[in-house]
This record gives sequence, structure tokens and C-alpha cells, in this order.
Amino acid sequence: MDLLVKRLVLGVQYDGSGWQGWQTQPSGNTVQDALERALFQFCGAEISTVCAGRTDAGVHGIEQVVHFDTPLERASYSWVNGVNAFLPASVAVQWAKELELDEDSQDNFHARFSARARTYHYVLYNSTIRSPIWAGRAGWAFRPLDVSQMRIAAEKLLGEHDFSAFRASGCQAKTPVKHMYSIEIRQQGELIVFTLKASAFLHHMVRNIVGSLLFVGMARRAPEWLAEVLESKDRSIAAPTFMPDGLYLAKIDYEEKWGLPQSDIIELPGFLSLL
Amino acid sequence: MDLLVKRLVLGVQYDGSGWQGWQTQPSGNTVQDALERALFQFCGAEISTVCAGRTDAGVHGIEQVVHFDTPLERASYSWVNGVNAFLPASVAVQWAKELELDEDSQDNFHARFSARARTYHYVLYNSTIRSPIWAGRAGWAFRPLDVSQMRIAAEKLLGEHDFSAFRASGCQAKTPVKHMYSIEIRQQGELIVFTLKASAFLHHMVRNIVGSLLFVGMARRAPEWLAEVLESKDRSIAAPTFMPDGLYLAKIDYEEKWGLPQSDIIELPGFLSLL
Repeated sequence: MDLLVKRLVLGVQYDGSGWQGWQTQPSGNTVQDALERALFQFCGAEISTVCAGRTDAGVHGIEQVVHFDTPLERASYSWVNGVNAFLPASVAVQWAKELELDEDSQDNFHARFSARARTYHYVLYNSTIRSPIWAGRAGWAFRPLDVSQMRIAAEKLLGEHDFSAFRASGCQAKTPVKHMYSIEIRQQGELIVFTLKASAFLHHMVRNIVGSLLFVGMARRAPEWLAEVLESKDRSIAAPTFMPDGLYLAKIDYEEKWGLPQSDIIELPGFLSLL
Repeated sequence: MDLLVKRLVLGVQYDGSGWQGWQTQPSGNTVQDALERALFQFCGAEISTVCAGRTDAGVHGIEQVVHFDTPLERASYSWVNGVNAFLPASVAVQWAKELELDEDSQDNFHARFSARARTYHYVLYNSTIRSPIWAGRAGWAFRPLDVSQMRIAAEKLLGEHDFSAFRASGCQAKTPVKHMYSIEIRQQGELIVFTLKASAFLHHMVRNIVGSLLFVGMARRAPEWLAEVLESKDRSIAAPTFMPDGLYLAKIDYEEKWGLPQSDIIELPGFLSLL
């Protein structure tokens, strides 16, 4: 009897500070390696996973989405709790969903190719003195920043553009043309949170954009400069890649037909200011 | 010429997750050890510090207050930036204030004895699935909690009481009688934040109170039970000591005459819920 192979989809949260990024490495010290080791221990079989968006060393995932194929029959809560029992404190499956797999069809769910949009947060701690509470969880900028100027600059990036000016040299994306749906910049006390939503992101794109917005916030450049950088398609003109610490992969958008139990709310760590 | 000895006061922030508590240990792996090593490197002389409240292993400090005596003349910003240069990412001086020291007087500032009140936050992540983003930074309770019942229970602890029922056996306080000024319990999404302000706290007192409040929140006990526990003065009746991960020493209150540049706002890490 042939076992029916299903496509399992997982929502995975991780604190990236101790990991060498998402993608499997010979060191074994990546989030994917940790997840696949836990899946092996839970299933007793080697499992290869495909993720929606590979994150760099030090970057966090609030809700990364992953799929893999398996003939194993388990309840959703069993996939969550069973796999979590083999994961370290810094990684945990948040939900699991079993989907049908038609090996003759082009229309199967795929964590990366079925994604319609990605949302990232960049959390920045803006204060003259560094904060140990935020170490590894937020970028740090010690110069005062003008948020209204950064908002004007960010608008220049909205819409469909060739984002080559914000693309790392090793980027493997097929095309540098992406659609930027929104960039929100919020300020709460000493925190500034940048939320970017786009069809997809090039390698280092969020960190390169945040670095360039900080140049504007510090008045080293005028807001219009961001349009010039974008049009130049020249990576050497934009600001340096900003530190990974404050970057969170927050949400992957998929069509409703897949019925994934994703969080409605995109949560991110912030400061509540209490008097 | 005699050098004039001054009393230096520092506000210190730390992430306690990697440390064996505040107080110096033979291992050298405590926050006090890290601070005194940095002071030695900055000053070129051994310096012993006195803190407002010693925190346990894994407990965090948003604004611990520390004093020590020194003849060194440095500007405040130099104490902050100079010492921070020798501190790891998980510890940082936030401010420094130089006070006069009259060695013949009883009225010198003292980080512990001049303190009028202490405020602690306990941050709890309340969800069926654990959160890696909050690992080490919040306690975790996976059963649903009734916040309104916990608020009723917390009221039983307000005012001056003998808190022996919530006191660890090794506690070195002179008296178990403390004044509880307020206990606030706030809920935001999956976070519940307990904020306790008292004249002083016994060893493990916050974690023992939070553990007992959770018994009420889970309906294992009625709110009135907390009054019974308090009156019993018997540690064996209260709930077990709850995990240190979510505990933050937030604020030490001193008289205004000392002119300490403390934060007006007691900040704590929380989730901003964004749609």
C-alpha cells in the first residue's frame, strides 16, 4: 500500500541572535538545521524544508513559513508540540497545517513561490546610550533622527521599481524589480519601528534601505536623495548595510484558499511606556 | 594634598539572562563583577559598589542604582561612556551623578538605605505555544488566565504586612514587614504585565507573589486564598517560586534632594500590536 504524501506547512518563530541565519550550513548552526534536526527526531526520517524567506545571521523570525512533504499522519497540535520538544528555547513552531499534495499539478502550495507579499519590521533604539535590554533585538542609532524627513524619503520607494541600488552583491533573486506596497515609520519613546511590505525583498534590501533612511534622518542627506539612489541602480551610492539586530521577518501573505492559521496580528517587540 | 573623595551614583541597565545574578561570586560571572571589572579598567583602581537591590540569576535591571566612592574627577558623560567601553553588550551604565561625601555625617546618599521604594515588573507570556522572541525575557504560562480574578487577589496584599509567606528561606532582610504600595496587572495581547511597588521586597517575594497570583488566574484557588496565605506567614502554603525570566527591577525611588537623573518613564519590553 502506498502511503499518501501530504504537504505540511509550519509557522516558525525564532530569535536569530545566536544563529548563523536561516539556511543550512556545514556548521549546522542555523535555524533550518535546528528545525530539520528536530523534525528528524520527531519523525525518525530525514526531512528537507523549504522556507518563504531566508534570513541572515542575527535576523529574527516572528512568523517564518516553511513546508515539507511527509507520509506521516499526525494531528496539527502534535506537529507543534512534538517538534517543539526537540527545539531549543530560541526556535518554536507556532502552528501546523496539512495540505494535499498533487504531484502531477503545478498548483501545490509552496512556501516561497505561493507567497504574495512579505512584511519586515526593523526595530531601532535611538538614544545616546546603548540599551542592554535591546541588545541583539534592535539596531542602535545614537544620533537624533528626524522621523518626518525619513517618512518623506521612504515615499520615494513606493511602487514597482528596480531595487538594484539596495541589493547585496551575492543576491540570487531572478529579478531586481519588486513592488514596495508600504513603508510605515512609527516612533514610541526611544524606539523607531520601520515596517516594510513588498512583493519580495532582495538580499540585504531592508537593511540597506534602513541604513539609507538613517542618512536622511541624521540630515546627512535630503529626502530627495533616496529617489536618486533608487534611480542610480548603483549599490555603491546607498548607505552601508545596517546591522541585523533589529530585523524581524514578520508576516508572509498567501491566498486565503490555503487556509493557513496565520496570526491576524503582526506582533513585534516594543516598549510599553508606563508612567 | 588630600584628594577629595566623592560618592558616585550610577544608573545601570542589564539583561540578566546570561548572568548569575547581581551579587559578586567566586565565578566572577555576575553583573556586579562585570561592572567592577569595567570600573577597574576605567579607573585603574579597585572599586567596590553598593547596589539598591540585588537581583537573582536571570533577573533583569532596567534601572538598577549603584554607588561607590572615588577621588577621581571625571565628567558625568565620561563615567557613562568610559565605563561602557569596558562592559559587554548585556550591561550598560545609563547615567552618572557625583554627590558630596561627608565622612562624618549620617546623611550621605546610600543606594540601598536612601531608597524609599522599589518597582518591579513581571512580564508574562500567556499562550499555549512558547515564544522564542520572549525566551529569557518573559515568564511563560500556557493555561488561560483570568486577569480580573488576579486583580481581586492582588488587592489583598496592599498595605503594610508581614510578607513571610512570600519570603525565601535564605532571605537576609532585617524584617519581613514591608509596605506594598500598588500592584497593577495589565494585559496586552498575549502579554500580562504585573507591576509591583513596595517599600522593599524580600528575597523571591515578587516571584512568589506572581506564582500565587497565577494559581488564582488558573482558578486553582479563589482570590480570597491570597489573604489566607499572607496571614499564615507560612512559606509552604504559597505557590512555588515562579521562573526569573520575566522579572525586571524597574525603578528605585529616592528623595528629590539627591537630584539623580533617573528616567521619568519606567519602560519595559512589551509587544506593540500592529495590524
